[in-house]
Amino acid sequence: MTPAAKQHLALGPGPEFERIREIQRLLGPQGRGLGDDCAIIPAGDAFFAISTDVSVEQVHFRLGWIELAEVGWRATAAALSDLAADGAEPVGVLIAVTVPASSTHADLLEVMTGARDCAGSVGISIIGGDLSSGSVWSLAVTVIGHARAPVSRKGAVPGDAIWVTGVLGGSRAALEAWRGGRTPLAGARERYARPTPRITAGKWLADHGARAMIDLSDGLAGDAGHLAAASGVALELDLSRLPTAPEVESEATRAGVPPQQFAAEGGEDFELLVALPPGFNAAAAFTQATDLPLTQIGTAIGGQGVRFLHHGRALTLKSFNHFG
Amino acid sequence: MTPAAKQHLALGPGPEFERIREIQRLLGPQGRGLGDDCAIIPAGDAFFAISTDVSVEQVHFRLGWIELAEVGWRATAAALSDLAADGAEPVGVLIAVTVPASSTHADLLEVMTGARDCAGSVGISIIGGDLSSGSVWSLAVTVIGHARAPVSRKGAVPGDAIWVTGVLGGSRAALEAWRGGRTPLAGARERYARPTPRITAGKWLADHGARAMIDLSDGLAGDAGHLAAASGVALELDLSRLPTAPEVESEATRAGVPPQQFAAEGGEDFELLVALPPGFNAAAAFTQATDLPLTQIGTAIGGQGVRFLHHGRALTLKSFNHFG
Repeated sequence: MTPAAKQHLALGPGPEFERIREIQRLLGPQGRGLGDDCAIIPAGDAFFAISTDVSVEQVHFRLGWIELAEVGWRATAAALSDLAADGAEPVGVLIAVTVPASSTHADLLEVMTGARDCAGSVGISIIGGDLSSGSVWSLAVTVIGHARAPVSRKGAVPGDAIWVTGVLGGSRAALEAWRGGRTPLAGARERYARPTPRITAGKWLADHGARAMIDLSDGLAGDAGHLAAASGVALELDLSRLPTAPEVESEATRAGVPPQQFAAEGGEDFELLVALPPGFNAAAAFTQATDLPLTQIGTAIGGQGVRFLHHGRALTLKSFNHFG
Repeated sequence: MTPAAKQHLALGPGPEFERIREIQRLLGPQGRGLGDDCAIIPAGDAFFAISTDVSVEQVHFRLGWIELAEVGWRATAAALSDLAADGAEPVGVLIAVTVPASSTHADLLEVMTGARDCAGSVGISIIGGDLSSGSVWSLAVTVIGHARAPVSRKGAVPGDAIWVTGVLGGSRAALEAWRGGRTPLAGARERYARPTPRITAGKWLADHGARAMIDLSDGLAGDAGHLAAASGVALELDLSRLPTAPEVESEATRAGVPPQQFAAEGGEDFELLVALPPGFNAAAAFTQATDLPLTQIGTAIGGQGVRFLHHGRALTLKSFNHFG
């Protein structure tokens, strides 16, 4: 009954990840497994995948922007997204909620309604939790899943094709609108407030040869680096192929960057980035199974780091860092 | 792969628990399992037990009182205490840490050192987590354990003897000293700042016939009510038998209550309250195995609620409610 990972996974560049690297060093062999989407615990001939994810008011969301039920939904979806990245089947959710003194009990029930509905949308229940008072809303959501062969961030090899599910940038489009005092387009708001955890997509990809997978919570610009570092490969990604949400264009224009760059630098789309063997040609079957596009945006090659190209020109991207 | 509990457990009285009851009603069949120390997930011929527990600065601890490493230790110990109450063997810990902007990275490493050491003290590792910024320190600790036959709060029957591990009241003695501007006695400070999760004791009791068990995180006054309500029995507890920590006496005198009442109304001792069959007579063997006293303090009878007696006189106790 010991966790499966034998060593830390390498992480991509960035000051936030330097902090995690230092924690990995501090924890030494006692911290093995840190740095992947989920911790993995063997159970018979399969595995449990488990992940914990915190959503803090004023850091991950603001209440002027979204409803309390959406706070609960979004925090739960963000945690479930880690299970999706492992190709795991969800089993249960635990939620520790910190409730500000200024809120009512009805407020708490609204938050829990959103969490319940998100859990229910992938067929599971809230099976535990904790309550505390505090100065702002904070939700620590722990998800448990089950997988015969969980997919890690590690496992991409040179020659693999790199694909992305869905369309990107919608969540950032909503965020930029709110930050600019504008009302987001309805579709962008929905992508930010009620993201769909890509559980079905993750399982499908795990069943169809996924070698490495990560969910795009910190955005393509940062997360691609983690997949590359964990796998020990370089990635060459062509942003001109990147599928963007229809709501991106107007906000990208305001920001003065191409829509694909805007999308790659935005976080919290909760789509999946996946390395598939070079011969993979079942994108149409994926779309039939999930109702989502699956788009090849690049290739794994020997080396390290991520090279972003846009119409043949190299681009240096900024990582998404919430708005804290 | 569905969680084991088929319905909510009943909780004892108190406004905090009324909130949880309302959440149980809201979640309906999707919230089954809420109200026990751990959620239980079947895995082959055994079970995983999982619990999440949040520790918030200014609610569960203050930094003038304890060191950062103790913040990490204490939060981890509080979560592990839930595994102890199920008689589970720890498997791993995940920690989501919210870090105040005013802190340094070295501060975070100190917190993680304490968490690492506490996990290491029961033979496990930190296998995952999350980092966020926020206004105060907050740690959401999730623990996973493994048990062939987890012990629930439900299962005590009339006639069972009610026992408690260790000695109570030390944690409250430290708290009252700090609140009164005094320096706690060293032993009381240690019980507050570095509680020992009763993992060995919990496993021993599970192996020796424990019918129901709960950890005393909210204090005997409140937690006894949960065990009674979950089991559908009444408890008659004789506080004159309650073993108190040596540091309790001076603070109880200041508070103007008997030491046993002071201890029963204090929380966060993280000892275990356990229902054992009437013929149980192995307390000496327990002490040999765990180096802790095991003391019978009462009996389960038909009915509901908890009756506290002190030298034959009925006492109404106040529940511990942190200091928020």
